[in-house]
Amino acid sequence: MTKKYNSVLIIGMGLIGSSISRALVENHVANSVYGLDTNDKIIKKGHDLTNLNNFDLQFDLIIICTPLSAYKNIFSSLSDFISQPTLITDVGSTKMSTISDFKNAVTNNNITFVPSHPIAGLEKSGPEYGFSKLFDNRYCILTPYETNDAATSSISEMWKSIGMTVELMEADRHDRVLAMTSHIPQLIAFSVVGTATELESHMRDEVIKYSAAGFRDFTRLAGSDPIMWRDVYNKNKDAVLEMLGRFSEDLSTYQKAIRNGDLEFLENKFNQSKKIRKEIEDIGQAGSFDPTEKKN
Amino acid sequence: MTKKYNSVLIIGMGLIGSSISRALVENHVANSVYGLDTNDKIIKKGHDLTNLNNFDLQFDLIIICTPLSAYKNIFSSLSDFISQPTLITDVGSTKMSTISDFKNAVTNNNITFVPSHPIAGLEKSGPEYGFSKLFDNRYCILTPYETNDAATSSISEMWKSIGMTVELMEADRHDRVLAMTSHIPQLIAFSVVGTATELESHMRDEVIKYSAAGFRDFTRLAGSDPIMWRDVYNKNKDAVLEMLGRFSEDLSTYQKAIRNGDLEFLENKFNQSKKIRKEIEDIGQAGSFDPTEKKN
Repeated sequence: MTKKYNSVLIIGMGLIGSSISRALVENHVANSVYGLDTNDKIIKKGHDLTNLNNFDLQFDLIIICTPLSAYKNIFSSLSDFISQPTLITDVGSTKMSTISDFKNAVTNNNITFVPSHPIAGLEKSGPEYGFSKLFDNRYCILTPYETNDAATSSISEMWKSIGMTVELMEADRHDRVLAMTSHIPQLIAFSVVGTATELESHMRDEVIKYSAAGFRDFTRLAGSDPIMWRDVYNKNKDAVLEMLGRFSEDLSTYQKAIRNGDLEFLENKFNQSKKIRKEIEDIGQAGSFDPTEKKN
Repeated sequence: MTKKYNSVLIIGMGLIGSSISRALVENHVANSVYGLDTNDKIIKKGHDLTNLNNFDLQFDLIIICTPLSAYKNIFSSLSDFISQPTLITDVGSTKMSTISDFKNAVTNNNITFVPSHPIAGLEKSGPEYGFSKLFDNRYCILTPYETNDAATSSISEMWKSIGMTVELMEADRHDRVLAMTSHIPQLIAFSVVGTATELESHMRDEVIKYSAAGFRDFTRLAGSDPIMWRDVYNKNKDAVLEMLGRFSEDLSTYQKAIRNGDLEFLENKFNQSKKIRKEIEDIGQAGSFDPTEKKN
């Protein structure tokens, strides 16, 4: 039986924060869900993420859904503000930096922090794109840095109640795995789109026009939130640079094979990649792409 | 008014060939459509793409939909086989090589060749995935290498009749534009997926499991037909190597910015990429991605 929270605060009401808010309400996980955002077009409750004076109530669960660069100040403010036992979790894409920011900022013993990373998203940003089913059938990785079974279990149940499968992992391992599954593909997508942008202008126009040939898939990723991603590369520098090094080495072998006309090498490599795709489809993590346009 | 063909032969009944066949029938562009394929599970009409002896009839339009490496032999056979005026077109992803293969193999004056490249596809291969709407709202590039307005117009009308927008382009320009919009993204997708495949096996499993974070989009492209792509890199070597060089240079600037913590550079670049995505959405070439799984 999922614990019901009395009062939940979500800090950062973008795509993820607003989707969590909808999912918590829809699945009756919380009696009340409050949101806080810097952007007063989004929510009028507070103009500053660290300005918790607007609230005269306390919360039993707080979920941080902001870019990683805001964490330090948010943790400091929470450390000052919280006056009763409170669980905190987050949704950040890097976990070593998150834990370090928490430890450096928080001295308040009422706070228990269980870092989370729900692996779900869209290339769109902003609460207008949020939807409660975003987390359905997706994984959420928890990286608890100290033994606290009750807190870990409580956060775990919360994610499960909105449709996620929860896994525990060491924070450093999380950061290396996600560098490969997320940070590198995203960086490469930005970079490929950047290369196209810098072509002579008439060719640039044609690249956009004929993007349905593969390029558009890269632009979809590259449509993601710039601030969020800037922070990820800042916070997961080592793992990203390591995986980027591996990728560059591998790409060079393809380049050489093309130059030398080594068709057997190319065919073998392409066949291996096709198998990986099959595995991802088989475990139901492939999503689905509709090559036609949505009618307006 | 679209010209109605009496009898059309499609050589190569994969995803594209079978989709064209369906679209031509559905849009009443041809009285009869015949298919020829090496794979007798696909069609029993012929065991060899160049074995046209099985046919005791002639065709007014022949569309080549095979991997590029088969073109030379197919053109030779057609040059021997054809005994009445016949239009030929193709769907190949590289056009300089196609024209050169044609010129080297064909001496038959009954044949008029207008090279085409319908920019439409899926990561799936095989006729079972073909569907008539694949070409709807997509571009088709023609690269006629000699002036023949009647033939070009006839091929153009055929593509339009199945929903495509037709553009004319020089073959060498086509090959450079497509290197950027298609061949490079595809190669990079294969390469990123390859890098992940070669990780230690426990990390490889996790990369597959948590692929929803961006990696899955690369695997979708990397699920495409290995033979088709092997041939593309062989036939468009120069343009691919040029664009790959540009991409590698650009990627190095991102790498350096991450190493140096140059957040402003990253944010600016990411913002530029986001704008490109917006342009592609605005011209209706973005397709649509559904992040949820299709229910079986």
